[in-house]
Amino acid sequence: MNEKKLKELLEAVKTSELSVDDAYNQLKTLPYADLGFASVDHHRTIRTGYPEVIYGENKTPEQIGMIMNELASKGDNIMATRCSAEVYDAVKKMVPDAVYYDEARIISLARSESTVRCGSVAVVTAGTSDIPVAEEAAVTAQLMGAEVTRVYDVGVAGIHRLFARMGDIIGVDAVIAVAGMEGALASVLGGLVNVPVVAVPTSVGYGANLGGLSALLSMLNSCANGIGVVNIDNGFGAGYLATLIARKH
Amino acid sequence: MNEKKLKELLEAVKTSELSVDDAYNQLKTLPYADLGFASVDHHRTIRTGYPEVIYGENKTPEQIGMIMNELASKGDNIMATRCSAEVYDAVKKMVPDAVYYDEARIISLARSESTVRCGSVAVVTAGTSDIPVAEEAAVTAQLMGAEVTRVYDVGVAGIHRLFARMGDIIGVDAVIAVAGMEGALASVLGGLVNVPVVAVPTSVGYGANLGGLSALLSMLNSCANGIGVVNIDNGFGAGYLATLIARKH
Amino acid sequence: MNEKKLKELLEAVKTSELSVDDAYNQLKTLPYADLGFASVDHHRTIRTGYPEVIYGENKTPEQIGMIMNELASKGDNIMATRCSAEVYDAVKKMVPDAVYYDEARIISLARSESTVRCGSVAVVTAGTSDIPVAEEAAVTAQLMGAEVTRVYDVGVAGIHRLFARMGDIIGVDAVIAVAGMEGALASVLGGLVNVPVVAVPTSVGYGANLGGLSALLSMLNSCANGIGVVNIDNGFGAGYLATLIARKH
Amino acid sequence: MNEKKLKELLEAVKTSELSVDDAYNQLKTLPYADLGFASVDHHRTIRTGYPEVIYGENKTPEQIGMIMNELASKGDNIMATRCSAEVYDAVKKMVPDAVYYDEARIISLARSESTVRCGSVAVVTAGTSDIPVAEEAAVTAQLMGAEVTRVYDVGVAGIHRLFARMGDIIGVDAVIAVAGMEGALASVLGGLVNVPVVAVPTSVGYGANLGGLSALLSMLNSCANGIGVVNIDNGFGAGYLATLIARKH
Amino acid sequence: MNEKKLKELLEAVKTSELSVDDAYNQLKTLPYADLGFASVDHHRTIRTGYPEVIYGENKTPEQIGMIMNELASKGDNIMATRCSAEVYDAVKKMVPDAVYYDEARIISLARSESTVRCGSVAVVTAGTSDIPVAEEAAVTAQLMGAEVTRVYDVGVAGIHRLFARMGDIIGVDAVIAVAGMEGALASVLGGLVNVPVVAVPTSVGYGANLGGLSALLSMLNSCANGIGVVNIDNGFGAGYLATLIARKH
Amino acid sequence: MNEKKLKELLEAVKTSELSVDDAYNQLKTLPYADLGFASVDHHRTIRTGYPEVIYGENKTPEQIGMIMNELASKGDNIMATRCSAEVYDAVKKMVPDAVYYDEARIISLARSESTVRCGSVAVVTAGTSDIPVAEEAAVTAQLMGAEVTRVYDVGVAGIHRLFARMGDIIGVDAVIAVAGMEGALASVLGGLVNVPVVAVPTSVGYGANLGGLSALLSMLNSCANGIGVVNIDNGFGAGYLATLIARKH
Amino acid sequence: MNEKKLKELLEAVKTSELSVDDAYNQLKTLPYADLGFASVDHHRTIRTGYPEVIYGENKTPEQIGMIMNELASKGDNIMATRCSAEVYDAVKKMVPDAVYYDEARIISLARSESTVRCGSVAVVTAGTSDIPVAEEAAVTAQLMGAEVTRVYDVGVAGIHRLFARMGDIIGVDAVIAVAGMEGALASVLGGLVNVPVVAVPTSVGYGANLGGLSALLSMLNSCANGIGVVNIDNGFGAGYLATLIARKH
Amino acid sequence: MNEKKLKELLEAVKTSELSVDDAYNQLKTLPYADLGFASVDHHRTIRTGYPEVIYGENKTPEQIGMIMNELASKGDNIMATRCSAEVYDAVKKMVPDAVYYDEARIISLARSESTVRCGSVAVVTAGTSDIPVAEEAAVTAQLMGAEVTRVYDVGVAGIHRLFARMGDIIGVDAVIAVAGMEGALASVLGGLVNVPVVAVPTSVGYGANLGGLSALLSMLNSCANGIGVVNIDNGFGAGYLATLIARKH
Repeated sequence: MNEKKLKELLEAVKTSELSVDDAYNQLKTLPYADLGFASVDHHRTIRTGYPEVIYGENKTPEQIGMIMNELASKGDNIMATRCSAEVYDAVKKMVPDAVYYDEARIISLARSESTVRCGSVAVVTAGTSDIPVAEEAAVTAQLMGAEVTRVYDVGVAGIHRLFARMGDIIGVDAVIAVAGMEGALASVLGGLVNVPVVAVPTSVGYGANLGGLSALLSMLNSCANGIGVVNIDNGFGAGYLATLIARKH
Repeated sequence: MNEKKLKELLEAVKTSELSVDDAYNQLKTLPYADLGFASVDHHRTIRTGYPEVIYGENKTPEQIGMIMNELASKGDNIMATRCSAEVYDAVKKMVPDAVYYDEARIISLARSESTVRCGSVAVVTAGTSDIPVAEEAAVTAQLMGAEVTRVYDVGVAGIHRLFARMGDIIGVDAVIAVAGMEGALASVLGGLVNVPVVAVPTSVGYGANLGGLSALLSMLNSCANGIGVVNIDNGFGAGYLATLIARKH
Repeated sequence: MNEKKLKELLEAVKTSELSVDDAYNQLKTLPYADLGFASVDHHRTIRTGYPEVIYGENKTPEQIGMIMNELASKGDNIMATRCSAEVYDAVKKMVPDAVYYDEARIISLARSESTVRCGSVAVVTAGTSDIPVAEEAAVTAQLMGAEVTRVYDVGVAGIHRLFARMGDIIGVDAVIAVAGMEGALASVLGGLVNVPVVAVPTSVGYGANLGGLSALLSMLNSCANGIGVVNIDNGFGAGYLATLIARKH
Repeated sequence: MNEKKLKELLEAVKTSELSVDDAYNQLKTLPYADLGFASVDHHRTIRTGYPEVIYGENKTPEQIGMIMNELASKGDNIMATRCSAEVYDAVKKMVPDAVYYDEARIISLARSESTVRCGSVAVVTAGTSDIPVAEEAAVTAQLMGAEVTRVYDVGVAGIHRLFARMGDIIGVDAVIAVAGMEGALASVLGGLVNVPVVAVPTSVGYGANLGGLSALLSMLNSCANGIGVVNIDNGFGAGYLATLIARKH
Repeated sequence: MNEKKLKELLEAVKTSELSVDDAYNQLKTLPYADLGFASVDHHRTIRTGYPEVIYGENKTPEQIGMIMNELASKGDNIMATRCSAEVYDAVKKMVPDAVYYDEARIISLARSESTVRCGSVAVVTAGTSDIPVAEEAAVTAQLMGAEVTRVYDVGVAGIHRLFARMGDIIGVDAVIAVAGMEGALASVLGGLVNVPVVAVPTSVGYGANLGGLSALLSMLNSCANGIGVVNIDNGFGAGYLATLIARKH
Repeated sequence: MNEKKLKELLEAVKTSELSVDDAYNQLKTLPYADLGFASVDHHRTIRTGYPEVIYGENKTPEQIGMIMNELASKGDNIMATRCSAEVYDAVKKMVPDAVYYDEARIISLARSESTVRCGSVAVVTAGTSDIPVAEEAAVTAQLMGAEVTRVYDVGVAGIHRLFARMGDIIGVDAVIAVAGMEGALASVLGGLVNVPVVAVPTSVGYGANLGGLSALLSMLNSCANGIGVVNIDNGFGAGYLATLIARKH
Repeated sequence: MNEKKLKELLEAVKTSELSVDDAYNQLKTLPYADLGFASVDHHRTIRTGYPEVIYGENKTPEQIGMIMNELASKGDNIMATRCSAEVYDAVKKMVPDAVYYDEARIISLARSESTVRCGSVAVVTAGTSDIPVAEEAAVTAQLMGAEVTRVYDVGVAGIHRLFARMGDIIGVDAVIAVAGMEGALASVLGGLVNVPVVAVPTSVGYGANLGGLSALLSMLNSCANGIGVVNIDNGFGAGYLATLIARKH
Repeated sequence: MNEKKLKELLEAVKTSELSVDDAYNQLKTLPYADLGFASVDHHRTIRTGYPEVIYGENKTPEQIGMIMNELASKGDNIMATRCSAEVYDAVKKMVPDAVYYDEARIISLARSESTVRCGSVAVVTAGTSDIPVAEEAAVTAQLMGAEVTRVYDVGVAGIHRLFARMGDIIGVDAVIAVAGMEGALASVLGGLVNVPVVAVPTSVGYGANLGGLSALLSMLNSCANGIGVVNIDNGFGAGYLATLIARKH
């Protein structure tokens, strides 16, 4: 029941063409398809100032460019994840001011200033191979308004490196721990900070790492508290969750 | 927004206290909680004549008895699954005309005559150990109005036994294939009948049957077509699905 | 024992060359190979009006073309699944009126009109990446005679999109729910409709989706009833099963 | 190097018994064991006003009672998880004002008023069997200072029940989604709220639910964003994480 | 179509009541159920002299006793597997000359002399904990007519023990290798003998033996040739297969 | 201790240079390396007349050619498995009379006549995609001296095709059942024949077939007896085992 | 070929009854069984001074007592693992000076002084629940002659506890790291010490710890080097391996 | 707090500008980041004389060349693992005296003489396909100072080959057992030697070897003692661990 139809119904009530009871019954028994009008599109509310997100995997450069172009014309901020350099080249032709974060594989486009007040997020990795996933998380958090600190290559096999950087981590509103192999970084961080830790297992490793399942299981079974786990290699999801946590309500 | 409030709103429109636009805006932005009135309880429609179902696992005899008593007082037909004989003893004290199907572990209570027109279902098992799951399926289908034929212990290791019984299977509206171990019965049946086969893997077996996963995988990978699989040991689900399939629309 | 031999045997009985007992004994001890005559080829019955199906995976374009050509010459309707555009190009040279459904990757050929009376099927997907599997299901159902409604990209992360389309789903004879990732669509649909739901997990997703196992397990463990699951990415199987369900007996 | 020794070293510097360089070298090469003094016990900071937590699993009633007694004598607030009624009976004899939450299986003891300012948490379950895990989460959050709303038995198989309760969920600082079977509740909630969702898979279900792995995988692969997953049945961990998220910094 | 009916049909041909063509058509279109007469019960052939087998798991002592009694009255040899001592006590009351093999958990009953000519089988175990499974295999083979040699506790961790017993193994017609843990015995034996090796993984072990899967995978991946694997702990299956192999054709 | 040294020792005993006791002690304490002489190379015995086998996977065409050349020069019969057509082209240049079985991917070379007396083997497949594995088994068995019957594409989804061919299967000494997907063929065959069945799961299939694990589990859990399973796609192993079984001792 | 026979052979050579060639041939073709004499029982060498080990799992108290009694009478040192207090009570009646280590569940008996020179081993645990496994390792190492240091409950969630104890760990010859849940302790220790770390995953934990597999995978995928992993809960194996490493050669 | 700052603090104590108590408090409350100075870099100690290790996987030839160049300029010995021949070509241009071990895929560079005293290591493989992993282990051990013996292709399917080589294995300080498929070599070796065995499962094999998991599980479940397992294909880790074990303390 679209706006026009609903207003006609109300007009009919107003003009007494339709009794209150009959109008009530019509509203009450609306089939599902017509409830659409009432399903508050909360996403609009949530995303005020947040960029619209395009999941770039399995989309052609042309598709991504067209979607960005269309959204951009409405004044939205936009970010597209999982985009190769080739995709960016194609997009740039259509949207010249698009920006590319190559390690994060994210294309962004700024059209309006964010009004979300957001705190700070630290993105920490165990090794250098975890950096692409970490960058996806970090750039996501930045584009959503968070202040981001990067602390890379501080895995627990040389734990003094982590300690040497704790000064950069203490005090943020949320920590993202990115690690493959045995994923011990999340547990150690969980014991050292007093804010939520978003743990991202990566598929980095070989042998019995089972495509990242070893790190995933490790993080789920952490002996430390305050850890929430996202899917393997899901840097975007971690950045999104950490930003929600760090938001100033 | 309950009936009273919604009618007041319509009255206000009628008396012009509220403009059509304002009324529209109020309706449009209704918070979720107030949408309740409009969520057509389709279950009522579906279940007309079907029994109400209580999942008895992890409920005390007293809880089951009380729920049955309450539903019975409304005139509903009722079935409770996964009930031990002890549960039945307790229930019978509260609801004397409750009936118990011991192999199926189902308690039923008839209060009104079903108006659903339903066809026939054949329940077929590979071995004798599969019978409890098969009975859960068979009794479920019966209580939902289907005519049920039981063809038990006709597994493929002695395939002439299955062939000897095909006359009882050909012509039904849906077949339920219940098998543990390697679950080959579903594939063989799928190749012999031209109606949907609902496959129920059972946890019957030992060694590398992995609690029924061997039969489950077997059924999902069947080389025959027209097979839909339900969860391991889920006789109730199979009976329910087969009855939906066999229903006369 | 072919027709000729069997008739000779009966003639010998008729002419008393062979006693009834001897004839009986010959029939009784027929080796397996000679039972062929009696194995009613039920497939003929089932498929009356249904297309013959060729599973195209791992077959060369030439093989597929030849099989289609041969079947076509008998007047059968034909469909070949899992065919790339390259295969179609090759087939078209041999069978010029073959039709290609590119998203479904199906080639079809119509030679006779279906006599099967079939109802309607709704094919619903969670995301856009699930569409190729959904199209395999949808085209299969169409070619087997069902009326098909497509409702795509209505996953539960934005559940208002699903509700807005429920009007297209309510009333069909069977629903096919196609979803990867967490596969929640099947459960939500199972709770909203009162006809069988055929659930197709897809391998869409990444990380710990285990090639579609996450969606598969999700669908098997659905808290809703009336759901039958087919194998991962098995669009053809889902279309076939849904059409059997929707058939007007 | 304890306080006494370190002060002696500094005194020796002051009195020039030890050169600055020698003192520096002694400090520089301190073995690990002596670094203890400097490892800020951040837990004290974090837990100010939070209860001390005892993990009760595998501990005897006597052990739990003794630890509670000892901690209580220091004026700490205390909570002990995974405690049976028998454990509580034993504890109460030693600590008469201990309080027992039987569904949550938590014993608590209040000795000082919390100074942590904390927001609100909604705990939502799919079924009634998920309630024990939900209560562990809810009571944990309460004892850590959060305001808790319980919304139970609103699983997606009857999604109108969830919608009817959304008014209780919208507006909290963090949502805990507790679900077994296919765990679809987390995805649906993730799409409906704009705060972090802590997802707790439960081992509720049977067949191929693999002790809760089906729900776990489902939640990790959610198509909705803003979801952090904890271990199967880990109500305490979920309550702890949600409270950290809801804390007013 | 039973004997009587078929003979009537042939009589009708003989008396020309039925034409050859009509008789042919009746035979040709026999429904499945009536094909029974022709399904050669090959089991009779196979089992000539072999005992009838009752799978005792999940059967009550009374059920087993009754089945044995009934079969015994027909003069069959019988063996019942997976029978506890309690079952034997109950059976003995009904069938006094039943014999019990306690380690093998098999009850046997001899009524006729075997006419099968069978060779010899060696049953070899890695440890002492594998003996119950080995005995199930050994006693099965004995009762089916094989000459059995037992070589127990010769696992590869002390390989000289195996070599010291090779004289008992060389020359048999089939070897059964029973091992849990890493199951290496099958590979070593496969390299030392030139007859088929039937490998039986056992669930013996702990930790990551996964209920016998470690031994099962080990045996399937053996670097030696000539090994056929049966299910975990399936002593009966191994004894049966080895006896088929050792049979003198 | 090679021949020369051992004879010198015996000579020294003979000439009384060495006492019997000293000679005994030298023999008794021989280190492992010197036991070599006594380790009867039973393979020679076994393989009399059998071809030498080269596992071609991961070997270069040149390596295979050289090994074949060398073995051929000794008069051995040879077979090399897992060889592509490219490998054969290279080998043929070095060994012109090498023969290639392209579906089996085996190269063979005959130099001497087999003296092994071997019986017959039937190789049966469920589908056409299983044929490459089946051919590896069939050609292996042929080259080792067995008489081989091929019965292809008789899967259980159209079980009348299998029955029509049973006459070719009944009477062989061993049956090889090759099947992917749900692997039901092995169970059905196990119930129809009275000789050992060697079951070969293939990786044929898609979705949750897990690279052949579905068929493997199915075959291990078969409800029929007399089945020994080899590894996934291991046609060579199946052919080898079946030939050992069929050998005339 | 036992001593007597071999000496007779040598005597026959000496007296020229047997030619050197014939004697050589007899020796060369010795069947396996007679090679026993030459298989140096290296275990004697290894175990000099080490206790004989009895694996107590699945043995009755009587069996263990009898074996200990018999070995003790030969003057061997003995240890029996996996023994309950009940077993010890029974053993003590037969062997009064047997000693019981209750947390380790080991019974030991000293009869001779060890002559093995062995270094030191540190046994470190993450939590208190890991202590039983750690004690099995520690007592094993002690009884085999190692000097053992215990450092318990220093898991990485509170890493300052580990650092405070590093002084007790630095300098040993081998470290045993015992941890369940995410098993991060092994990685952290591997980065802090320069001797081999024997990692023992324990089944401690719940939810998706999969009976210890989470810790096992974690340890195998450690980002630190110098770590060797034993099976889940295998304290004995860890103690044995660490002692071999720490042995003074 | 770097050296300069710490010395200034100590100077201030010396000159009484700062009281001992104030200095103590400053030191006591040092944030993590400033503890760096005191975290003894034990790696220096460990690696004295050991080469610095670069993990070459996923690094570009240029990156590896630059890191080697830089480390080489400091006089360190260097080894880079997982380097293809292409990487070596690029590296050689920058570091002309770099040496390449092609089977091991390791590049090394010697700049100083090792001062570590190290014993001997035997590297043993089951098949020829295991050699690349074995070479990674062997070259690692050599470059770290161990004397290495290679014993290749002595798998248990032809166990006499292993025995013929035992003389080369007995007496070393550590044995590395490299095997794929069923990994039985580790168990057999564990029973034959009295030094630690480092077991390396390889991904060699096919079918249900699950990428090396079959060998991994086999080795973890070994019935022999004294075995520590490293990750699948982790030759470097095995070489590193074996060298630590063989080190002369």
